[in-house]
Amino acid sequence: MATTPRLDSPALRWDGRALQVLDQTLLPARETWIELSGAADTADAIRRLAVRGAPLIGIAAAYGLALEVARMPTVEALERGAARLAGARPTARNLAWAVERVVAAALAAPDDLAGAARAAAEAIQREDEAASAALARHGAGALEAVLPPGPVTVMTHCNSGALAASGRGTGLGVIAALADRREVRVLACEARPLLQGARLTVWELGRLGIEHQLLVDAAAPGLLRTGAAHAVVTGFDRVAANGDVANKVGTYGLALAAGAAGVPFVAAGPSSSIDLRLPSGDGIEIEERDADEVRAAAGALLTVEGTPCRNPAFDVTPAELVWALVTEHGAASPVTADSVARVA
Amino acid sequence: MATTPRLDSPALRWDGRALQVLDQTLLPARETWIELSGAADTADAIRRLAVRGAPLIGIAAAYGLALEVARMPTVEALERGAARLAGARPTARNLAWAVERVVAAALAAPDDLAGAARAAAEAIQREDEAASAALARHGAGALEAVLPPGPVTVMTHCNSGALAASGRGTGLGVIAALADRREVRVLACEARPLLQGARLTVWELGRLGIEHQLLVDAAAPGLLRTGAAHAVVTGFDRVAANGDVANKVGTYGLALAAGAAGVPFVAAGPSSSIDLRLPSGDGIEIEERDADEVRAAAGALLTVEGTPCRNPAFDVTPAELVWALVTEHGAASPVTADSVARVA
Repeated sequence: MATTPRLDSPALRWDGRALQVLDQTLLPARETWIELSGAADTADAIRRLAVRGAPLIGIAAAYGLALEVARMPTVEALERGAARLAGARPTARNLAWAVERVVAAALAAPDDLAGAARAAAEAIQREDEAASAALARHGAGALEAVLPPGPVTVMTHCNSGALAASGRGTGLGVIAALADRREVRVLACEARPLLQGARLTVWELGRLGIEHQLLVDAAAPGLLRTGAAHAVVTGFDRVAANGDVANKVGTYGLALAAGAAGVPFVAAGPSSSIDLRLPSGDGIEIEERDADEVRAAAGALLTVEGTPCRNPAFDVTPAELVWALVTEHGAASPVTADSVARVA
Repeated sequence: MATTPRLDSPALRWDGRALQVLDQTLLPARETWIELSGAADTADAIRRLAVRGAPLIGIAAAYGLALEVARMPTVEALERGAARLAGARPTARNLAWAVERVVAAALAAPDDLAGAARAAAEAIQREDEAASAALARHGAGALEAVLPPGPVTVMTHCNSGALAASGRGTGLGVIAALADRREVRVLACEARPLLQGARLTVWELGRLGIEHQLLVDAAAPGLLRTGAAHAVVTGFDRVAANGDVANKVGTYGLALAAGAAGVPFVAAGPSSSIDLRLPSGDGIEIEERDADEVRAAAGALLTVEGTPCRNPAFDVTPAELVWALVTEHGAASPVTADSVARVA
C-alpha cells in the first residue's frame, strides 16, 4: 500500500527570522497566513485559537518568545514575554513547558539571550517533529496488536493532526501511521463549539486521502455502542502522574462509551504534555471559554440572544478508561503510575 | 413558591376544523404558524421537523389524517393517508400508534369515517395533555425522594417540553413540575445537529422563568463527572419491553455519564411510546437523516463541502442505565420488564 502523504507543519513556517502561522479559525474556507512578531501577538493568536493544538502552541510560543527577546534582548523582556505567553491558555501543559525551556536556555546564555532563545525554540520544533513520528509508530504498533485483520474504522475527536503539531501530529498521526499499513476509515467528531473536527480534521483527512465520515459529537457514543468503530484515538493536552488525561471537551464521553463497547481508547501526545508533578486529573485547571462560542457556529446565532452558557474547553478522562497512553517513548498499556512514568 | 407558568400546546392549534402548527424549524428567531390540510402536508411537516417531539407528531398526524378523510371520506383515502403519515419518521412509536388508532376508530364507524377520525384525534390530544400532567407529577415525585434538599441542577437534552407535546411536555414537564416545588436550575444540551436544545428548550425555559445555561453536547459528560448536575431528565421516543430507551441522539452518552457519576437518569414520556412487542432496543429502527444537517448549522457551512457524514437521529440507552422510566401511569424504578409492563 502506498505511504499516506505527509503534511509536515502545514500550519507554521519559520525561516530563521520570521514566524508565520496559518490562521486556523478561517479553515477550511480560507487559508490565510499571519506573521507574528513577538510575545503579545503570539499570545493573542494562541488565545483566539488561530494557533491551536497542544504541541503547536508550545512551538509557536517558543518562537514568539524568541522573537520578543530578539527585539528587546533583556531579562526583563524575556520574563514579561514568558508570563504573557504562558498565561494565554491554562490547560495545555506544553505551553508552559516550552516557555520555561526557552527562558532557561536564554538565562543560561546571558551574553546571547536572543540566540539561545532562538536555538531553544528550533530545538523544540525539531524534537516535536521527531516525537510525532515516534509516537505515531508506537501508537499504530500497539493498535495493530489488538485490531482485527482487514479494513478498520477509527473514531477521533477534535484535531490532533499535522495542524496541531510539527510532523504528522499526535492522535491523527497514529491514525495516519496505521493507514500506511492497512485500509483505515475515520469517523471524525465535529468538536463543538469550535468545530476543529469538522473544519480541520476533515480538511487534513481529505488531503491525506483517508476515507472519512463526519458526525456530531452526540452521535459518537451510540455509534460506538453499535460497533461502528474498532478504536478511538485522540491527542491529549495534559496528563497527570496517575494517567488521568485532559483533552478537548467530549473526550471523556468517548472514552466512557469506548469502555462500555470494549473498544480500545488511545490518547497520544508528546511526553512534554505529561505533568508528573500533578498527582491526578483533579488538579488540572479546566479553561472556561466565552459563551459566544456556544451561542453561535460559523458566525450564525443558534439560540436566544444572551443565553447564559457553560463552556469548558476540556474535560478529564480517568486513567482506567485509557487503554493506551502513547508518547514518543512508547505506549503505556495498561495505564498506571509506573507505565506513565516510563513514557514521560 | 409561585407555580411555574404553563405553556399548554404552544405549538399546535385545533379549532375543530383547521389545524395550525408552529414551524419549529424557525424558532427562536421567528414564530411562524402554518396551516395543514391533510396527510401529505402533515407528513411533510413531520419529516422536515416543523412539527417534532414524539407526542406532538402523534397528535399532528392524527389531525392530519382526520383532515384527509374529511376532504375525501373513503377507506382508500384513509389507508393511503395513514401509510403516508406513518412512514414520515420511523423511530418514534407514537406516530404509528396514533395513526393506527385513528384508522381503527374510523373503520369502526363506516357511516361517519370523518367524524370518527376527528373524534379519535381530539381524544388523542386530550389524553396526551392529561398524560403530560400525570407523568410530570410522577417524575417529580420520584426525583424528590432522592434529591438533596435545597436548589438543584437538572440536565436535559434536546426538547421534551410543551413544544413537543400537549400540556407541559414530558422530560421538561417533569422539570417544570419539580420547579413548582423548589428552586431548579437547568443545564440544557444544545442537541446538534438540529439544535432543539439551543433553539427550543432555551426558548421554553426563558418563558417559564427557569434559570438555565446552555452547553454543547460534548461538555455534558465531563460536567456530570464533576458534579455539575443532580439529575438528568429527558423524554423518550420509543421504549422496548425490557426498558431499553430510544431517544434523541446523545441520550445514551448522557445516561452513561450519569451512571458513572451516580446521578439518576430519568426518561419520561407517554405510555403510548412503549412498544411491548419489541423485546429489546436492538429491534428499534434508527432513522438516519440527511448529511446536510451535520455539514451546516443555522444555514452556515461548517466543514468541507460535500463531506460524507453519519447522521443517526436517535440512539438506544440500555435499561440498566435508566434510573426511572416515567409515564402517566407511574415511575418504573428499577427498570425491569415487570416494572415497564406496569407503566405501559
